[in-house]
Amino acid sequence: MGPLEGIRVLDLTRVLAGPYCTMMLGDLGAEIIKVEAPGKGDDSRQFGPYQGGESAYFMSLNRNKKSLTLNLKSKLGKEVLMDLVSKVDVLVENFRPGTMEKLGIGYESLKQINPSLIYAASSGFGHSGPYSQRPAYDGVVQAMGGIMSITGQRGGMPTRVGPSIGDIAAGLFTTIGVLSALIYKNETGIGQKIDVAMLDCQVAMLENAIARYVVTKEVPKPAGNRHTSIVPFEPFDTADSQIVIAVGNDGLWVKYCDVCGLESIADDSRFSTNPNRNENYEELRPILSAKMLEKTTEQWQKLLDDAGIPNGPINSIDKVIENEQVLAREMIVDVRHPVAGQLKMPGVAIKLSETPGAVRFAAPILGEHNHEILQHYLGYDAEKIKELIEAGAL
Amino acid sequence: MGPLEGIRVLDLTRVLAGPYCTMMLGDLGAEIIKVEAPGKGDDSRQFGPYQGGESAYFMSLNRNKKSLTLNLKSKLGKEVLMDLVSKVDVLVENFRPGTMEKLGIGYESLKQINPSLIYAASSGFGHSGPYSQRPAYDGVVQAMGGIMSITGQRGGMPTRVGPSIGDIAAGLFTTIGVLSALIYKNETGIGQKIDVAMLDCQVAMLENAIARYVVTKEVPKPAGNRHTSIVPFEPFDTADSQIVIAVGNDGLWVKYCDVCGLESIADDSRFSTNPNRNENYEELRPILSAKMLEKTTEQWQKLLDDAGIPNGPINSIDKVIENEQVLAREMIVDVRHPVAGQLKMPGVAIKLSETPGAVRFAAPILGEHNHEILQHYLGYDAEKIKELIEAGAL
Repeated sequence: MGPLEGIRVLDLTRVLAGPYCTMMLGDLGAEIIKVEAPGKGDDSRQFGPYQGGESAYFMSLNRNKKSLTLNLKSKLGKEVLMDLVSKVDVLVENFRPGTMEKLGIGYESLKQINPSLIYAASSGFGHSGPYSQRPAYDGVVQAMGGIMSITGQRGGMPTRVGPSIGDIAAGLFTTIGVLSALIYKNETGIGQKIDVAMLDCQVAMLENAIARYVVTKEVPKPAGNRHTSIVPFEPFDTADSQIVIAVGNDGLWVKYCDVCGLESIADDSRFSTNPNRNENYEELRPILSAKMLEKTTEQWQKLLDDAGIPNGPINSIDKVIENEQVLAREMIVDVRHPVAGQLKMPGVAIKLSETPGAVRFAAPILGEHNHEILQHYLGYDAEKIKELIEAGAL
Repeated sequence: MGPLEGIRVLDLTRVLAGPYCTMMLGDLGAEIIKVEAPGKGDDSRQFGPYQGGESAYFMSLNRNKKSLTLNLKSKLGKEVLMDLVSKVDVLVENFRPGTMEKLGIGYESLKQINPSLIYAASSGFGHSGPYSQRPAYDGVVQAMGGIMSITGQRGGMPTRVGPSIGDIAAGLFTTIGVLSALIYKNETGIGQKIDVAMLDCQVAMLENAIARYVVTKEVPKPAGNRHTSIVPFEPFDTADSQIVIAVGNDGLWVKYCDVCGLESIADDSRFSTNPNRNENYEELRPILSAKMLEKTTEQWQKLLDDAGIPNGPINSIDKVIENEQVLAREMIVDVRHPVAGQLKMPGVAIKLSETPGAVRFAAPILGEHNHEILQHYLGYDAEKIKELIEAGAL
């Protein structure tokens, strides 16, 4: 049972940013009614790789959701949508701005039906501003939002973040918007529109890059694997692979030198404080690099862990999903899909003591819950459903 | 006025993951009482660069917060904390697991005082599992959580994401946990503990990498700037700089060919569908690369925008903060700090129609709100405050 049990979400999203938001809400117990185009469904149902003919991409983002097919371009389909709108707390969509209005189901229309509706829109550039109408994809937003310009090897090319952080960030910010609006609605009965732009979220996640630039006027570049202001805080080659060391303060520096047999440089004035280690990085790095080659990653891990010095291997995905901490935290879950069979996917990262969320059921087959939703939520009889099917509305 | 107005948060966080969470809550209208160690404060007050002697890093993460100094190791300091706990809705901390218990202010103790308290803990590895007690920093968690292994140039080294995504993601997930627990509490009166691990959040953000690996058994590598499954979806050099093109579907492919004068290859069976473009990427890339060199980024932008083809420049931070869309969305705000003067920082990315959040006031000076909080919230008189000062509790 999650904290959002009893909250009903009408989910008009597809691909990633919107579905990530409704996945978060569903993981926390909300009931998610995913509306999909008849015959086709969410675009990501076509994204490979497939397991048992079903998209692994789609399945990993759409657990805990029910699927209702609905042709939003048909009059009858729109009527069904309106009926649903009157019965839900939240609607989430990630169409290009203006699309919902063109369909005749924009926020201004829907709030006539349900004034306490929380209407969340996630889009590339938002519902205002000169770029509002532009289409966007993750790669474009990562480029425009600055994160690419500060990710990459030192002296190297701007680099795209591997996961689609443009979409995922928008999904997380939209979730925060929905929950905060629910808190306000539960108190006042008043709904509202939430407008989250992928580009805005990228700017909000630049961390200290903006502060550094506005104070120093130096344009931040790809910073490589080093921390921008803490030394040593980076990967080193070991006798067999690599290890990341994070010596976050001067106390840890002394311990680190001790563990490594580098007592001779612990008090060296060139290195004894973090500002000095920054200033004399070019002298320090070769000393540490040579030292770290002397043992294997596992040997270093043991020594550094015992001394309380933050460190870790660079895990590839196969290692991540077998990692003992990841497994102990149930961050990889096995979900049984009726068609595709067992599939591993990330678990619920928010651990709540009283109302833990859960992956309760697998992603739906297209239209799997048509009858359940139309009969039980909306009270349609068999004849009405037959009529909708014959009219191509489902 | 934000949607969280009236919600009071006791903020025991420092540096990034925790402060990012309480910044989100504060931006949305919650009242944030930031508890800091006397004389020293949040560690990040020492992080450069400085403006007027104040850390730009600290200031950009701690707007909308009030500062109360409190020595949590002193008996009197702890008593003040207990008084505050009885009057707040939420407590957020990002100490290493066990630290709060050692101080005698763990969740089990605090919920005796306030059973409806929402206690949110953000840590490196979480409050359970074999690595729980380990210290963590962003670079370590990015390495262990898999994101580094799939970020980087093709064939290149694993690459750290520029902003500290390990911390920021934990901040966002913790915020979602707090808000969902508030919804549950507002309905039931029951509080709970929220345990968010930086490592767990990294796993939750790997997107399709896990699905791809478990289905194909191929270990994902740094994917470079290309999309893993859509072509063309990557940067190209132009006559003067670079541009990212995102041709997300076959319809856009035809339009793109048309805009570029590549009609001859639009219907070419090697390239006419996305699976075929993926398969024949090595043949396609040189054709497109040569073509994109023929015009400047601005010329291409105009042509591609007119045709509705997603594209954008790779903006450095100086360009981001001047971008017309970013400015139109108020994603760069000017905040006046009483000591440091004007400082630019990211705005509020969640745009709410009824209860918009805001950057209401600048980050606090250390202990700036001691009297306000002790007198007005807790009703302490001048004598009691003097006693606390003399005992070194403030």
